[in-house]
Amino acid sequence: MYLKIDKCADLAIYRQIYEQLKSLIQRGSIGENERLPAVRKLAADAGVTRGTVENAYGQLEAEGLIASKRGSGFYVLEQHSFITTDNAELPEWQLELAGNSEGPSRQRQNADELIDFGRGTSDTALFCLTDFRRSMQAVLTTTDTGFLDYGDTRGYRRLRMETARILGSQGISVGPDNILITSGSQHALSLTARGLLQQKSVVIVENPTYSGALDIFKSIGAEIVPVAIDSEGMNIDRLEEALKKHSPRLIYTIPNFQNPTGVCLSAKRRRELCALAWEHNCAVFEDDYVGDLRYEGPAIPPLKSFDNGSCVLYAGTFSKMLVPGLRIGFIAAEGPILQHLTNSMKTHYLASSNLTQHALAEFISVGRHQRHLGRSRRVYRRRRDFFLKCAQRHLCEEISISRPSGGLFCWAELHGNYTAADLLRKAQQNKVSFTDGSTLHTGPYRGEKTLRLNFSCMDGKMAEEGLKRLGRAMHSLR
Amino acid sequence: MYLKIDKCADLAIYRQIYEQLKSLIQRGSIGENERLPAVRKLAADAGVTRGTVENAYGQLEAEGLIASKRGSGFYVLEQHSFITTDNAELPEWQLELAGNSEGPSRQRQNADELIDFGRGTSDTALFCLTDFRRSMQAVLTTTDTGFLDYGDTRGYRRLRMETARILGSQGISVGPDNILITSGSQHALSLTARGLLQQKSVVIVENPTYSGALDIFKSIGAEIVPVAIDSEGMNIDRLEEALKKHSPRLIYTIPNFQNPTGVCLSAKRRRELCALAWEHNCAVFEDDYVGDLRYEGPAIPPLKSFDNGSCVLYAGTFSKMLVPGLRIGFIAAEGPILQHLTNSMKTHYLASSNLTQHALAEFISVGRHQRHLGRSRRVYRRRRDFFLKCAQRHLCEEISISRPSGGLFCWAELHGNYTAADLLRKAQQNKVSFTDGSTLHTGPYRGEKTLRLNFSCMDGKMAEEGLKRLGRAMHSLR
Repeated sequence: MYLKIDKCADLAIYRQIYEQLKSLIQRGSIGENERLPAVRKLAADAGVTRGTVENAYGQLEAEGLIASKRGSGFYVLEQHSFITTDNAELPEWQLELAGNSEGPSRQRQNADELIDFGRGTSDTALFCLTDFRRSMQAVLTTTDTGFLDYGDTRGYRRLRMETARILGSQGISVGPDNILITSGSQHALSLTARGLLQQKSVVIVENPTYSGALDIFKSIGAEIVPVAIDSEGMNIDRLEEALKKHSPRLIYTIPNFQNPTGVCLSAKRRRELCALAWEHNCAVFEDDYVGDLRYEGPAIPPLKSFDNGSCVLYAGTFSKMLVPGLRIGFIAAEGPILQHLTNSMKTHYLASSNLTQHALAEFISVGRHQRHLGRSRRVYRRRRDFFLKCAQRHLCEEISISRPSGGLFCWAELHGNYTAADLLRKAQQNKVSFTDGSTLHTGPYRGEKTLRLNFSCMDGKMAEEGLKRLGRAMHSLR
Repeated sequence: MYLKIDKCADLAIYRQIYEQLKSLIQRGSIGENERLPAVRKLAADAGVTRGTVENAYGQLEAEGLIASKRGSGFYVLEQHSFITTDNAELPEWQLELAGNSEGPSRQRQNADELIDFGRGTSDTALFCLTDFRRSMQAVLTTTDTGFLDYGDTRGYRRLRMETARILGSQGISVGPDNILITSGSQHALSLTARGLLQQKSVVIVENPTYSGALDIFKSIGAEIVPVAIDSEGMNIDRLEEALKKHSPRLIYTIPNFQNPTGVCLSAKRRRELCALAWEHNCAVFEDDYVGDLRYEGPAIPPLKSFDNGSCVLYAGTFSKMLVPGLRIGFIAAEGPILQHLTNSMKTHYLASSNLTQHALAEFISVGRHQRHLGRSRRVYRRRRDFFLKCAQRHLCEEISISRPSGGLFCWAELHGNYTAADLLRKAQQNKVSFTDGSTLHTGPYRGEKTLRLNFSCMDGKMAEEGLKRLGRAMHSLR
């Protein structure tokens, strides 16, 4: 244990020891039931007499912070609170930050009995943990311990290979060297946004869109230009106007089961969007977070497959489909941008967790991915249908709810005389929650009567109970 | 399999199918020995006749890309190279990046028989993999599957608790709520630098210093002001001059076993540095990457323990001491900066890998950490001594090498008529490598005759062979 002893200070040495130990105990750095160093040892380490240490320990004991056990030294007693730093003693640069630390707009509710339709993720319970455990075990017992090192900044080659094959099965023709593994798709978007945008750069987004993307663009100081979305996705005429007017650097789009509206961009519009991006010298970030979770109808090829000119960066993730806690996503792209992002990755992060990548590469294969997808599709389709049936039964007619053909979310609009924010307050009193659509909008249209409902995480009973509660909340607002 | 079919296009439909499949195969997206979809299936999916698909497959077979196996369909044959995108078809914004994609300055040598004294990390072979495997297994078999979710942006609470305890044993008195878990210490520095610096902001660094820090500061466009280092660490008079002249936002320092010089900042200077930082309203980033790897002499308390005013952000890592591939580090700080960094973490990253954090929390404890430290200290001290003995034997008198009291690196200076870059070229021809000190310098003094040698990763025989080779390289330059 290091203690600072200043023999020239006015404060007695035993007090110096006492105060430092007290602070360590009160902050929880020395935990309950932990043994303090033996008097003899601490005295030697600190270069003081045993008597000095005994005095310090005596004082701590007198204050009820520690107790001695016969023959085995001093132990820390239970502490009832940790001390946090007093704001009075802050340098100016810290105080400037204090007024300036508003959190990202995403909200997460966590209460024991809350039924939360506001989640952004799929159901982790579908993840096949037993298989993954086997994969992890296989990595940790292999003789090749390459996973202990930082590894390739671009990501573990075998994982890039598997990713390229999965993409191939979806019509995106890239090789492993076109893939950059990231720590999740949020990280993929952050890397891209920081690589292409500066303060005042213009970025085009769908309105409404994923709030986490808005958070990134805002934090960079980019100018966000929203383009309306209809039943076929981003409105291409509005997009063209925006491209002409603002000369943006980047279009951010979620073409499949758009978050939050659940709408798919039509094939015709995909072709047009790619052509416009090329014409206006603008990059496109295709966020395909659940593109393969389709429950019915024909699949539309990814935007990237319409891209003849390296305009589109395709981003996918293993978080939504498999498990969020892994933090593994990827970007597929070509041209100098890929090296640019890889350099930035190296400078700011070195690499994504190599161990996790090795385990995932062992776990994943086109076949296993397809099986997992098949299973997830069946479960989520059933949940969507049940959710909509219950909604019809338990919600009054003052709400219309979309029936998305894939993905995780239903999009809804209130007809009554109250906003989604009003409803959210009431709902939370009734222990049910959802995402207020106005937090997902930007620009003049605020979507104050819209809401996003995640139907994927709950099985029948929970979902029905949640919708009953929501119905009661709506009733009380009428 | 998604294929794009345009029935109005000039290109025959079978050619459209043929070309898309060819591209998928040549890029490795459909791998060797993989089976193509059955003719009937692909025809139905694409809405074309079987004959059209058969024509496409026939063409691919004729070109040796696929072969049919009787009764089981068509399989992909071995491909000899992946195609990469031709730079001709790039949009302008991509071409602008092309000239602008110089990599970070860090270099890594990888050759089969190369003996590499240039590494930046400790020896992963000391890591107790069996114990870690048990910890991972315990996490993956627990009934609490919280690790599958994103988790707390600040990091898993139990890991923050253990980290606070380990810091407590080193004299830094913080609680778990003062800790932010990051994806390695590079990520910790990147978060801090981006949180505090803007283009043209001034940052003070020791000269020479860790090149990865310089990469981060450069990428932000910060102005880097180097301050000379002597046998007691950063020169405080020079620091004071720089503070007065440049009003920096941040001081970046490695007080223990500084990378690359191996020097420790004296206790007196630590006190002075903290006082100066407060006086000049400047933040301090204390990079303590191997502070506890001390082989002899008394420990000096961390800079953070001299900080009475929340000026110092202390960063540590589990990468160097345990294993780089985990990518887990942390920042200990108080005041608004902590919330500021946590928000930025949430916006750009969501959270560090939750699974890895759970496994590490299970693995690590003050006791186990101390045992691992004790073992590492013994091994590395022995390696340092052996390294220095061999250096005396095999290197000529044209080099002086430091004897650091801890850490991973010896710092050396050449007396001959050649630079470290000259020597590195010769050395690499002789299959040995090191870090050219000039890549670690900034400002007018370039350190062209300095080099950094990592003694920690090699046991006796390898180290001696490497030094023999280095001796031969020096000899050939005389």
